[in-house]
Amino acid sequence: MSESAYDKLVAHARETALLTSTQDLLFWDEETYLPPAAGDYRAEQVAYLAKLVHARRTDPQVGEWLGECEADGLDKADSVEAADVREMRRDFNKRTKLPPKLVEELSRTASLAQKAWRDARQADDFASFQPHLEKMIGLKRQEAEALGYDESPYDALLNDYEPGETVANLTKVLGALRAELAPLVEAIVASGKQPPVRVLERDYKIAAQRTFGKRVAEAIGFDFNSGRLDVTAHPFCGGAGPQDVRLTTRYDAQEFSSAFYSILHEAGHGLYEQGLPADRYGLPTGEAVSLGIHESQSRMWENLVGRSHAFWKHWFGPLGEQFPAAIKGVELDDFYFAINEARPSLIRVEADEATYNLHIIVRFELEQALLAGDLPVADLPAAWNEKYQQYLGITPPNDADGVLQDVHWSCGLIGYFPTYTLGNLYASQMFDAAHDALGDLDEQFAQGEFQPLRDWLRTHVHQHGRRYGAPQLAERVTGKPLSHEPLMAHLRAKYGSLYGAA
Amino acid sequence: MSESAYDKLVAHARETALLTSTQDLLFWDEETYLPPAAGDYRAEQVAYLAKLVHARRTDPQVGEWLGECEADGLDKADSVEAADVREMRRDFNKRTKLPPKLVEELSRTASLAQKAWRDARQADDFASFQPHLEKMIGLKRQEAEALGYDESPYDALLNDYEPGETVANLTKVLGALRAELAPLVEAIVASGKQPPVRVLERDYKIAAQRTFGKRVAEAIGFDFNSGRLDVTAHPFCGGAGPQDVRLTTRYDAQEFSSAFYSILHEAGHGLYEQGLPADRYGLPTGEAVSLGIHESQSRMWENLVGRSHAFWKHWFGPLGEQFPAAIKGVELDDFYFAINEARPSLIRVEADEATYNLHIIVRFELEQALLAGDLPVADLPAAWNEKYQQYLGITPPNDADGVLQDVHWSCGLIGYFPTYTLGNLYASQMFDAAHDALGDLDEQFAQGEFQPLRDWLRTHVHQHGRRYGAPQLAERVTGKPLSHEPLMAHLRAKYGSLYGAA
Repeated sequence: MSESAYDKLVAHARETALLTSTQDLLFWDEETYLPPAAGDYRAEQVAYLAKLVHARRTDPQVGEWLGECEADGLDKADSVEAADVREMRRDFNKRTKLPPKLVEELSRTASLAQKAWRDARQADDFASFQPHLEKMIGLKRQEAEALGYDESPYDALLNDYEPGETVANLTKVLGALRAELAPLVEAIVASGKQPPVRVLERDYKIAAQRTFGKRVAEAIGFDFNSGRLDVTAHPFCGGAGPQDVRLTTRYDAQEFSSAFYSILHEAGHGLYEQGLPADRYGLPTGEAVSLGIHESQSRMWENLVGRSHAFWKHWFGPLGEQFPAAIKGVELDDFYFAINEARPSLIRVEADEATYNLHIIVRFELEQALLAGDLPVADLPAAWNEKYQQYLGITPPNDADGVLQDVHWSCGLIGYFPTYTLGNLYASQMFDAAHDALGDLDEQFAQGEFQPLRDWLRTHVHQHGRRYGAPQLAERVTGKPLSHEPLMAHLRAKYGSLYGAA
Repeated sequence: MSESAYDKLVAHARETALLTSTQDLLFWDEETYLPPAAGDYRAEQVAYLAKLVHARRTDPQVGEWLGECEADGLDKADSVEAADVREMRRDFNKRTKLPPKLVEELSRTASLAQKAWRDARQADDFASFQPHLEKMIGLKRQEAEALGYDESPYDALLNDYEPGETVANLTKVLGALRAELAPLVEAIVASGKQPPVRVLERDYKIAAQRTFGKRVAEAIGFDFNSGRLDVTAHPFCGGAGPQDVRLTTRYDAQEFSSAFYSILHEAGHGLYEQGLPADRYGLPTGEAVSLGIHESQSRMWENLVGRSHAFWKHWFGPLGEQFPAAIKGVELDDFYFAINEARPSLIRVEADEATYNLHIIVRFELEQALLAGDLPVADLPAAWNEKYQQYLGITPPNDADGVLQDVHWSCGLIGYFPTYTLGNLYASQMFDAAHDALGDLDEQFAQGEFQPLRDWLRTHVHQHGRRYGAPQLAERVTGKPLSHEPLMAHLRAKYGSLYGAA
């Protein structure tokens, strides 16, 4: 029997994955162990592999094989193979639709804009970054036009990270979230309560933090036989193949929660990666479906599990054994309050579970307005500060800690921010569904039982890869369309009891 | 101006180096940090990159560019460019001369033979390995014929590792070495003296071993800004680019010298790699010239420097500060004697400076006889044991600790072993030349001054890459052809004073 067009596509994609997984290793190594002087050559290695990968992915032969599959109706069935063909087509079109000149211009502009952004933040000088951002916004409009969209140019960009999501839907859901979240945060502030956060700022030896973090990651189901935990400056979950998932974190010997929750967060991503079907590695049905779904897995383990009272009912004892001096005399309820501090603050990456999504909503609203041309880049800092005052009740004292704090826009990442909040929304919605299916999760956590939840996620989320779109997958799992209600219910319950602020 | 054939060759080779350096990273990672379950996929990544690299290196276009350069006489000059063309031609011919079917057969046989070797060593059962070795020897004969040679088929294989060396020359030099070395070892044994080796087998904390090893590596000139030190099972010096040289070692918390001398040995290799001209990375003139010259650098720092009395005159104080409990009450002279213990033993990789080369000479003589057909594989174990008795005065009690101890022959590495002894010979010969040029090296070492030697090696050896052949380079550096005399003089002086055995 001769090899079918589908078989050829699969073989080609699997071979490409040998290169992309090698790129992943180059990246992981760069962020963990690369000697300082080796950065320039590493950039050359990365660029060369990117060239090889791009050539393979835009090879006209791929388009022909896809055409053959489609002529045979292979993309129409309700099967993993059909899903592969449909998703490969989407990827191929996306990659071949952009004029090479635009791709090159985007890449050059991003490179210059990132440098300009770094300098501008350093000098607290938005004006020097402004022309770069203006140029980038213009190019992103061109990109949206080239990619095509039904309703809004923003959709075209959003779909790069969150296939199937629309700005119309997000505006509705995030609007509803904001309307209920801002008053909750206000009530938290008004309560005047202060959790005893100093218990987290004691002597926590790094080696012991690592041991404890690995132990918890293992307990929630992360497999260190197919993974690792290393140190980096900006924590991420990487890897270099189907059985090779690498978590990273950073430690502060005087602070417990930062490294610990990084580990839990990245382990949540890692569980997703380890739950993807290894035998489909390199194919769409062996890949994560969207950034929002990915983030839902990390946020669920970090916040809904790892900041729950039930979780610490089990782990507070082992914690005390690991850090006897630091935990001596600390009560479980005080510790629980400390790791759930909520407080409006300026910096997104340091924000807590309650305020985080308001940071995202600010960015989501502003980048839409920028792309639509409703907000000139020159007016961005004022608009930023106004929204921070309105939603979070604080005004940044300078642009470095305000509009210049994130790297994203300088890289051309427009439509990326909302995936963080989508992650929180999906996490709560899926967690409720898991609760309905598995019984009292709190009871299980308090007993140290995390496998039922992990296995449920594996069955209902991880193993499907990109078989379903992100909104479709979430609706299959939870039986409901995206809503702000599960997240708000969770936040109200938690902060109501902690701050008396429901 | 249009790009010349030489320019095209250079650009092509540099692009290939982006892939080979990535292969190097895959290898380093596999030996250091790869999760246990990720081995199978890593093998696929390695095989795929090897395929890409092989296709580039045997691309007929390379042969055409080389032809153009040669037609212009570009290979004739006394310049780095001419050396590049000559060496690229040699590499290209070597890679294109072997019939693909033979390459495939060698690869398959090696894979099966390595597995069979592992099982045979485990079971102490040479007979089960014998057919694999017979097949391999037959294939290596075919390889030698395909590669071509002037005098002996062995030369063709030897030249893969030691370009320009001949079996005739090695037979002469190694024969002379054996004739003087065996009696020296006999005299050491006859002296009945025992160094106090137990001082090395105390409590040496691994973290402190690492700190001390890095400190010494840095002091001899290894640049950790362009390098690293990690842990592995079988120490090696690897890396992933021109500014990225990675040492590895393994630690035993109850033994000092094994990890320390691994670090010094690999740092010697590392100094060579860091001394190659970075701007010619990927070109022959940016590469190490031969295994023997490479080994001369590691052996010089490990043995001639690191096991000298002068070296410890400087470092014994810091050692005592690093390991106060272990070194308490130990005299410098006793420590010096302990790290220079000489004693005939069965296992090559555990052998000391005095006996090591006898292990190599056994293998060199036997593999020649195997290839020439003078020794049937069935008779190899008996021949092995006889030579061990004759040269080292001991007979292996079984084949596992005798003829089955090394992996090399199962991989098809015939002609490789002598490069270890070449390293020791070149090291002594170059060290004498450095001594003549730099004045009393012992005096410098005792003051902690290692930069003059490193810089001298950089100027006279490292920076030339493959500009000269190995024998030519050594003769340029030392003014003399290869000889056993400097090494014998060094060993006689050291062991004469330690054992009274000159």
